[in-house]
Amino acid sequence: MPRLRLALAQTNPTVGDLAGNADQIVAAAKAAREAGADLVAAGEMSLTGYPIEDLASRPSFLQASRHAVEKLAERLEAEGLGDLAVIVGHPDGPFEPRLLDTSNAPTAIAKNCASVLQGGRVVTTTAKYHLPNYSVFDEYRVFIPGDELLVVRVKGIDVALIICEDLWRDGGPVARVMEAGAGVLLVVNASPWIADKDEVRLPLVQHRATENDTFVAYVNIVGGQDDLLFDGDSVVVDGAGTIVARAPQWREHLLVVDLDPEHSTGRTMPAGIRRVDVETPAFGQLEPIAPDVAELPDDRQQLWDGLVTGLRDYVQKNGFTSVILGLSGGIDSAVCAAIAADALGGDRVYGVSMPSQWSSDHSRSDADDVAERIGVKYSVEPIRDLVEPFERQLKLTGLAAENVQARARALILMGLSNLDGHLVLTTGNKTELSVGYSTIYGDSVGGFAPIKDVPKTMVWELARWRNEFAEAQGLRGPIPENSITKPPSAELRPGQVDQDTLPPYEILDGILDAYITKALGAADVVALGYDAEVVAEVTKLVDRSEWKRRQGAIGPKISGMAFGRDRRLPITYRPTVL
Amino acid sequence: MPRLRLALAQTNPTVGDLAGNADQIVAAAKAAREAGADLVAAGEMSLTGYPIEDLASRPSFLQASRHAVEKLAERLEAEGLGDLAVIVGHPDGPFEPRLLDTSNAPTAIAKNCASVLQGGRVVTTTAKYHLPNYSVFDEYRVFIPGDELLVVRVKGIDVALIICEDLWRDGGPVARVMEAGAGVLLVVNASPWIADKDEVRLPLVQHRATENDTFVAYVNIVGGQDDLLFDGDSVVVDGAGTIVARAPQWREHLLVVDLDPEHSTGRTMPAGIRRVDVETPAFGQLEPIAPDVAELPDDRQQLWDGLVTGLRDYVQKNGFTSVILGLSGGIDSAVCAAIAADALGGDRVYGVSMPSQWSSDHSRSDADDVAERIGVKYSVEPIRDLVEPFERQLKLTGLAAENVQARARALILMGLSNLDGHLVLTTGNKTELSVGYSTIYGDSVGGFAPIKDVPKTMVWELARWRNEFAEAQGLRGPIPENSITKPPSAELRPGQVDQDTLPPYEILDGILDAYITKALGAADVVALGYDAEVVAEVTKLVDRSEWKRRQGAIGPKISGMAFGRDRRLPITYRPTVL
Repeated sequence: MPRLRLALAQTNPTVGDLAGNADQIVAAAKAAREAGADLVAAGEMSLTGYPIEDLASRPSFLQASRHAVEKLAERLEAEGLGDLAVIVGHPDGPFEPRLLDTSNAPTAIAKNCASVLQGGRVVTTTAKYHLPNYSVFDEYRVFIPGDELLVVRVKGIDVALIICEDLWRDGGPVARVMEAGAGVLLVVNASPWIADKDEVRLPLVQHRATENDTFVAYVNIVGGQDDLLFDGDSVVVDGAGTIVARAPQWREHLLVVDLDPEHSTGRTMPAGIRRVDVETPAFGQLEPIAPDVAELPDDRQQLWDGLVTGLRDYVQKNGFTSVILGLSGGIDSAVCAAIAADALGGDRVYGVSMPSQWSSDHSRSDADDVAERIGVKYSVEPIRDLVEPFERQLKLTGLAAENVQARARALILMGLSNLDGHLVLTTGNKTELSVGYSTIYGDSVGGFAPIKDVPKTMVWELARWRNEFAEAQGLRGPIPENSITKPPSAELRPGQVDQDTLPPYEILDGILDAYITKALGAADVVALGYDAEVVAEVTKLVDRSEWKRRQGAIGPKISGMAFGRDRRLPITYRPTVL
Repeated sequence: MPRLRLALAQTNPTVGDLAGNADQIVAAAKAAREAGADLVAAGEMSLTGYPIEDLASRPSFLQASRHAVEKLAERLEAEGLGDLAVIVGHPDGPFEPRLLDTSNAPTAIAKNCASVLQGGRVVTTTAKYHLPNYSVFDEYRVFIPGDELLVVRVKGIDVALIICEDLWRDGGPVARVMEAGAGVLLVVNASPWIADKDEVRLPLVQHRATENDTFVAYVNIVGGQDDLLFDGDSVVVDGAGTIVARAPQWREHLLVVDLDPEHSTGRTMPAGIRRVDVETPAFGQLEPIAPDVAELPDDRQQLWDGLVTGLRDYVQKNGFTSVILGLSGGIDSAVCAAIAADALGGDRVYGVSMPSQWSSDHSRSDADDVAERIGVKYSVEPIRDLVEPFERQLKLTGLAAENVQARARALILMGLSNLDGHLVLTTGNKTELSVGYSTIYGDSVGGFAPIKDVPKTMVWELARWRNEFAEAQGLRGPIPENSITKPPSAELRPGQVDQDTLPPYEILDGILDAYITKALGAADVVALGYDAEVVAEVTKLVDRSEWKRRQGAIGPKISGMAFGRDRRLPITYRPTVL
C-alpha cells in the first residue's frame, strides 16, 4: 500500500522579497525532510508574495521571478534537499499579451503558477484556471488563465495540483482531475481571511473531499500584506470530510501528514491533463506521524489575532520599528494601543495624550490609565497654545475651529514621527469612516489604520473580549472600563458627544451593514425596519464622504466589504435613487 | 436612394444623475428633430454617466436605471419627439450573477447596454461584447458580456450598433456585423482622453471604415468625471476614411450629418445578429446639411483645455462654487491658478500666499504678480507665528521642522475652506508625486489635484504655451515669467532648491517615464543611457512613496499611466530586482 508523507508549508511571504521568501521555503523544506516528507507544498505565490497586483505586468519582475524559481531549485539541491519534491507558487511570464493592447496600458502577460522543483531544476509548472476578478481581486486584469491541468504522480499516488480559485468552482478543474482518477487533491492558496471565513472555506474543502471521496490538502499563506490578512489555517481532510490535520491560524507552520488513499488508478490521463512522475527520497520504513490538529479559537479571538497580525506585519515588512498614536481616553485609541502592544510589545508603542481646553478630566485620566495598563511610552502634549494662533490669525469659528484642534494633533503626531521614525497609527473605526465622522488631515492621518474595517459596536465587543481574555489568565485587562462604558465624544467643543450628530451606534451600524456590506438600496434598508429619514441622512453621509475615504490610510480588511479596493465607487456621484 | 440624417449627441453626464442626464438627452433630441434627423445617438452610459464602477453591482441602482430608460422613452413621446429614434447608453440588470459568488463580494449582475427608444417605449437593447479590464477599466468585474449583435434598419439602411471597446478588437463584432451587410457602423462610446489619443482613435475609426468600406459614426461623451477626461471629439468618416463631420473637443455638441451608403443589402441576418426595423418621421424633402467639421487644436491646447474641463466639472458636479489654493510664486501653483481661472473665472478662485521666514522676496512678489494677472481673490497669511509654537513645544528640527511649515499651510487652506466652502486644490505635479517630493498632510492636502498627471517639464511647457496663447490674442499671459524661469524650490530652509535632492528635471522625467509609464525594469532604464546610481535612487523613491500617493487627491488622467486606478501596486513591497 503506498503511503505519501505530505508537508504543507504555511509561510509568510512579503511581496517582492524573492530572497527572503525563498529562505522561508528552504527552511520549510529542511524541516520537512527531517520529518521524512516525500512532498512539500507552499502556498500560492509563496515565492513572490500575494497579491503582486500590476507587478505581474512588468516584464522585469516576471524575469526576476523566473530566475528566482530556478535559483531556488538549485539552492535546494545544493543544500542536500534535491531529492525532495517542493511545490512553490510564483508568477510566470512574460507571455504574449492576452488582450489587444488598445493603449499603452498594462496588459496581462503572466500566469499564476505553481511549480514542482526537484533535482536542482523546475520539473513542471501548472497555471491557475479560474481568475478571481471581484472584491479585492484583479486577477483577470493581470493574469492569463491556464489551459492545462496537472497531476503529479508520487509513490504511485496521483496528486492533482490546483490553485486557490480553482477549488471554488463547481464542475471545474476539481471535477476533471478527480474524474481522471487522482487520489489526492492538493490546493495551494493565498486566501484572505475575513470574519466567519472558516464557516465557508472549511465546509467547501470538506464538500470537495466528500463529493470526490478523496483527501484534500489545502495549504494557505499566512500574515498581513497591506490591507489583506492571510490566516493560514492550512488543513487536510479525508474522503469522509473528517479533519486529519490542521495548522494554527496567524503563524508560520509546517503541517506534516501521512496520506493513504484507497484508490489512485494511475490510468492514462485524458486530453488537457498532464501527468508527471516524481521520484521520492528513499527513507525506508517510517513510523506513522501524529499530525497537528489545531483548534480554531473563538470568533473574537480570531479577529483580534488577525488585527494584531495585520499591524505587526505592516510594521515589520515596511521596516518600521515602532508606532505612535494619539491616546484620547476613548475606546478606539485604547483598542488600537492594545492591538499595537500585542503586536510589537508596549515598549515599541508611543502614546500621546493631546488635551485641549474642551477635553474632559476623564479623557486625560483614561489615557493615562490605558498607557499604564499596556506599558506604552507616554507623553502629554497640550494643544491649546498650538491651536490659538490659528484661531486668532484666521478668525476661525465653528467647525473650522474644531477641525484645527484635530489637525494640530495630527501635526504633533507627524512631527514626532518625522523626528523618531515611528509609524503613525490612525484610530478611526469603520462606522466613522462610513459617515465621514472624522477630520481629514486631522484624526485621519497615519500610515496604517488598525481598526478601519471594524464597526464601532464591534470595537466595544472586542474591547470587552480582550479584557476578559486577560482576566481569564489572571492579568489586568488592557482597556480601561471607563473607556468602554462612557459615551463616545470627539471633545472638539464643550459637552459634545457623538450621538448629538449621529444615530445611536447600534442603529447606525445596522443601517451601514445593510447599505454598504449588503449593498441594499435605501428603500430596502427602510424595509428592514429603520426610520426612513435616518436612512436617507446616513446614506447621504456615506455617499458624500467617499473623497475622504479615498485619502485614508490602509488597514486590515476583516469583512466581506471593506473600504478600499473592495468597494469601488465614484467620488463625483449625484444619486437620484439610492 | 435612401438618405439617413443622423445626429450624434455629445453630452456631459454626471454619474448617478439620472434626471439631469436625461434632460441633456431630451434637449439633444429636440435640437435633432429641429434639424430633421431620423436617428439620434448619445454616448455609452449617457443616461447614468460613466464609469459607474461598483454601482453596477447594486440591484437598486440597476432598477433605477431601468426605470429611467422607460421614463425617458415616455418623456420623449410626451414632448412630441416620439417618432424620433433615440439611442441612449445605460446599464441593464439585475441579471443572474455571472460568477460563482464565493463570498458576499459583489458580482457582475449588469450589462453595459444601448437602447433604441421610440414611440414612448424601449424598442430594443443591445449589450457590449468586449469588456475592457485594463488600465482604469474594471468592466469584467462589473459587467456580463453581451451575446448578440444588433442591426437597426432605418430608411432602408442597416445601421450596426456597437459599444466602444467592440470597435477596437480585430475580427470581433465589427467584422461580423459588416459581413452581414450593414451600411453604417454606429459606435457609442465613453472613451477617456489621454495625450495623443487622437493619434490612435481617429486612425482606428478610419481603419474600420476603409477595411469595411462603410460609414463609421463615432459618438463620445464629454466632460470630467473624477480622474477621467472625456473629450467628445465625436466624428463621422466615410468608407474612404475621409472625415465627414467632427464635433469640437471639451464641449457639449450635436453633430448632424447625412449618410448615404451605397450598399446596405437588407439581407437575412446570420445567427447571433438581430435586425430591428425602426420607423422614421415624415419630414418630406430636406436640403442636404453642411455638417460641422471641427479642427483639432494643437497638442498643448488640447491638454490645457482638458485640464480646465477636468477641474471645472469636478467643481460643478460636486456642488462647489469656488476653489482655494496656496500661491507660492512657483510654477506649479501659478499654472493651477491659471487653470482654475480659465475653468471658473478669477473671481471664484482664492489664492493665499503663506510666506515663512525662509521665503524669498521673489516668492512673495511672484505670488502677488500671478494673483494680479489672473484676477483671483488674494490674501497673505504668514506662517511664522503658527509654526513657532510647534517647533518650540515639540523641539522639532530638520525635516520635522520643515514639514511643520508645509502642514501649517495646509491648516490655513483647510481652515479657510471650512469657513467658506471652497474646494482646496493641491498643486503637486506628477514628478513630485512619483518620487514623494512633497509633505503628506502638507502641500498634498486638497480635494482635487489639477496637474497630478503632468510631469514637471510639461508644466513648464504648458505655462509657456498658455502665455503665448494669451499674447497671440493681445492679452497678458497669466503666468509670471519669473515663475517659469527661476530654479524650483520648496523654500522650507534657507537657500534650498529642488535640485539639491533631485536630479535635473529633464533627466528625472525621462527616468520616470521609462520606469512608470513604460514599466521598464531598472536595468532597462539604465540601458537607455541614464546613470545607474541615479536610476537606483529614483526607482527606490518611487517604490517607497506609494503610501503617500495612495492618500493623495484625485486629479485628471492625461497619460497612459496615471497614478490611481491605472497603476495598482502594493505599498508593502520589498523589491529584490527592479
